[in-house]
Amino acid sequence: MSTEPFAAVEIIAAKRDRQELSDPQIDWFVDAYVRNVIAEEQMSAMAMAILLNGMNRREIVRWTKAYIDSGETMDWSKLGRPTADKHSTGGVGDKITLPLAPLVAACGVSVPQLSGRGLGHTGGTLDKLESIKGWRASLTNAEMFEVLDSTGAVICAASQTLAPADRRIYALRDVTGTVESIPLISASIMSKKIAEGTSALILDVKVGSGAFMKTVEQARELAETMVGIGNDAGVTTRALLTAMDVPLGRTAGNALEVQESIDVLAGGGPADVVDLTITLAREMIEASGASELKDPATALSDGSAMDVWRAMITAQGGDLSVPLPSARETQDVVADKSGYLIELDALSVGMASWRLGAGRARKEDAVQFGAGIQWHVGHGEPVVEGQKLFTLHTDEPERFAAALEVLTQGYEIGAESEISKRLPLIIDRVV
Amino acid sequence: MSTEPFAAVEIIAAKRDRQELSDPQIDWFVDAYVRNVIAEEQMSAMAMAILLNGMNRREIVRWTKAYIDSGETMDWSKLGRPTADKHSTGGVGDKITLPLAPLVAACGVSVPQLSGRGLGHTGGTLDKLESIKGWRASLTNAEMFEVLDSTGAVICAASQTLAPADRRIYALRDVTGTVESIPLISASIMSKKIAEGTSALILDVKVGSGAFMKTVEQARELAETMVGIGNDAGVTTRALLTAMDVPLGRTAGNALEVQESIDVLAGGGPADVVDLTITLAREMIEASGASELKDPATALSDGSAMDVWRAMITAQGGDLSVPLPSARETQDVVADKSGYLIELDALSVGMASWRLGAGRARKEDAVQFGAGIQWHVGHGEPVVEGQKLFTLHTDEPERFAAALEVLTQGYEIGAESEISKRLPLIIDRVV
Repeated sequence: MSTEPFAAVEIIAAKRDRQELSDPQIDWFVDAYVRNVIAEEQMSAMAMAILLNGMNRREIVRWTKAYIDSGETMDWSKLGRPTADKHSTGGVGDKITLPLAPLVAACGVSVPQLSGRGLGHTGGTLDKLESIKGWRASLTNAEMFEVLDSTGAVICAASQTLAPADRRIYALRDVTGTVESIPLISASIMSKKIAEGTSALILDVKVGSGAFMKTVEQARELAETMVGIGNDAGVTTRALLTAMDVPLGRTAGNALEVQESIDVLAGGGPADVVDLTITLAREMIEASGASELKDPATALSDGSAMDVWRAMITAQGGDLSVPLPSARETQDVVADKSGYLIELDALSVGMASWRLGAGRARKEDAVQFGAGIQWHVGHGEPVVEGQKLFTLHTDEPERFAAALEVLTQGYEIGAESEISKRLPLIIDRVV
Repeated sequence: MSTEPFAAVEIIAAKRDRQELSDPQIDWFVDAYVRNVIAEEQMSAMAMAILLNGMNRREIVRWTKAYIDSGETMDWSKLGRPTADKHSTGGVGDKITLPLAPLVAACGVSVPQLSGRGLGHTGGTLDKLESIKGWRASLTNAEMFEVLDSTGAVICAASQTLAPADRRIYALRDVTGTVESIPLISASIMSKKIAEGTSALILDVKVGSGAFMKTVEQARELAETMVGIGNDAGVTTRALLTAMDVPLGRTAGNALEVQESIDVLAGGGPADVVDLTITLAREMIEASGASELKDPATALSDGSAMDVWRAMITAQGGDLSVPLPSARETQDVVADKSGYLIELDALSVGMASWRLGAGRARKEDAVQFGAGIQWHVGHGEPVVEGQKLFTLHTDEPERFAAALEVLTQGYEIGAESEISKRLPLIIDRVV
């Protein structure tokens, strides 16, 4: 006979029947799954029941804790400096982590940033950084501490030992139609960030066609859920709802976005990327509890953020003297009439970049470092017939047609009065 | 690259989002599962989405057809006689199939009855018949035809080749909290009955504490769904809603119920068992389209039903000259006061019988043929202090305490005015 305190099917049935799960039920369910007492098909049925019937705040907090308790947690207290991290729910052209981490470090707050790879039309921070020759995403905990201690910031892959329950459940959700659940998304994101040991966390919850959350209401619910989980776990957590109806900056891709990030660190770059980077940096610094530090705008203009960037990349083996990879083929899209760019849809740009080879369809695929899109004209800007609107980059020219098919539906030239209304860059703040 | 026409996750997501699934989506989903292109965890997530979001009539009919198409179907046309079958959704003391199949055969309608084993508190027809020495549940298709042709009735196990998709999905539902779904229950029952090749089918949908469906409303929904599926598939299908708030007859167990069935075939037996058997027999005969046949009441009284029973059991190796097994130990429960049996709860009696060893907790468990319960007093009948109310039978006397614990809560002696209202034996008819 089994000596387990619960039967899996009874807990699944409870959630199926809209009952609230107890703390011991949640703890056991996640732990038993990790121990292979609960089978994949039982966890996927539970995930569908959670997706359709929801969880209350207490259940979500406990489910997240169970993920954290499935692995080790990190502790940066011996750094002797405040720590802060940022998480973005993902968007098109969202390279913000690249300039942001060294910028915040340059202001005196350490940034232990665990990042992921891209799947689908939004890119992954690690994929972008790997376009720098020699740069290594995988560090041991000792190496991570060393880079963080010596440079003030580190961006690397999460270790397999951090919230391993989430790692397995995420892979399962991906194939069972159970990704789109606010409780499960929140638990997945927050378990890794809490286990990572940061003392402050800023969430950049994207809203719009290019984001996972299409409406402000959905994004606010996700943000409030995650802010609640973080603060309950002792991490000072705040969220910004930011625009993802239009892509960020002027590039989507891997090396293309690294170059744009370097432009920002050099004091230039697109205004929206600079604005969002500085806004998030100020939030991180404030949430970390540090005071009388250098202002982020100053750290960009005086070169100190760029100094941290160079040190951080170099410490992880990156050679910034080697030019960034470029795609073997490019193709320009020019304006067929004059007017204004009245539409520039984030999802279409993201899909086109993905189809050019910048992203991956399956976890095991490789990305093309040089692939992606530049848009030379921003949303609402004037256009002259024959002017270059986009440059498409890929190593495989047979990809151009599929990319253009989706890109063409994502932009339009028209009269100034027809410019589509777009979301403000910073929509709201959730504390 | 895959050459599959669909992606499993997209079809799961469609049902999750309350969309109607198309015929090609349903056909592919079930077929791909049987081909192991769809994983267990994907089917269980789909089952939970179906349970929580439902299916419309067209989807259920098609889902059922996909189960049927996963295996072979049987054809009895060369018998040259009408065929009819009955399916009960399961109840306590429900031995009706045993007298019913030979009775209907004695009236001139052939009965190809595929039955199952018990799991939980309701017994299984095959478990009951296996208490007859030598009787074999597993027949080849040729043997099944031979018994049916020579005796007019056959009761045996469904072959592994009949609706194999349902066999696998049922096992999966059992461990993932997805049993309690009217679309999935209907598809499971009806796929086997349609594949079995009967031309008429009577469904006995039980209602009450001892049944799967606790309310008349639930039972009616299940009955209407199944009647619709059957008639759509060309099987003349009707349903009776019948009472399972109180157990049927006077015994629950395996050999105990065989003996009670033999009593009915001999012209005796409890009135409720006789009434329900004759009612169902008339429904089967009428639905089969046969006319000017012998009336079932006559076939019971003139011994012709008993003749078919003997021939049918003997043809499957059963030796009726050997006494039925009896349990090694018995214990009586006597009335502690005089009055009326104002309460006799089917679920409590069923659970007690199960705990005595008549049923199994897991598929791989064996049942005790002699175990079970007799109730000597029926619901609403007068009781004298000291009178025997129940006899408990088991091979393992340590089981008495657990059985009594649940049985004690299921009956009560009180005043005549306190007799609980019970459901009529035949509640309604669904055509």
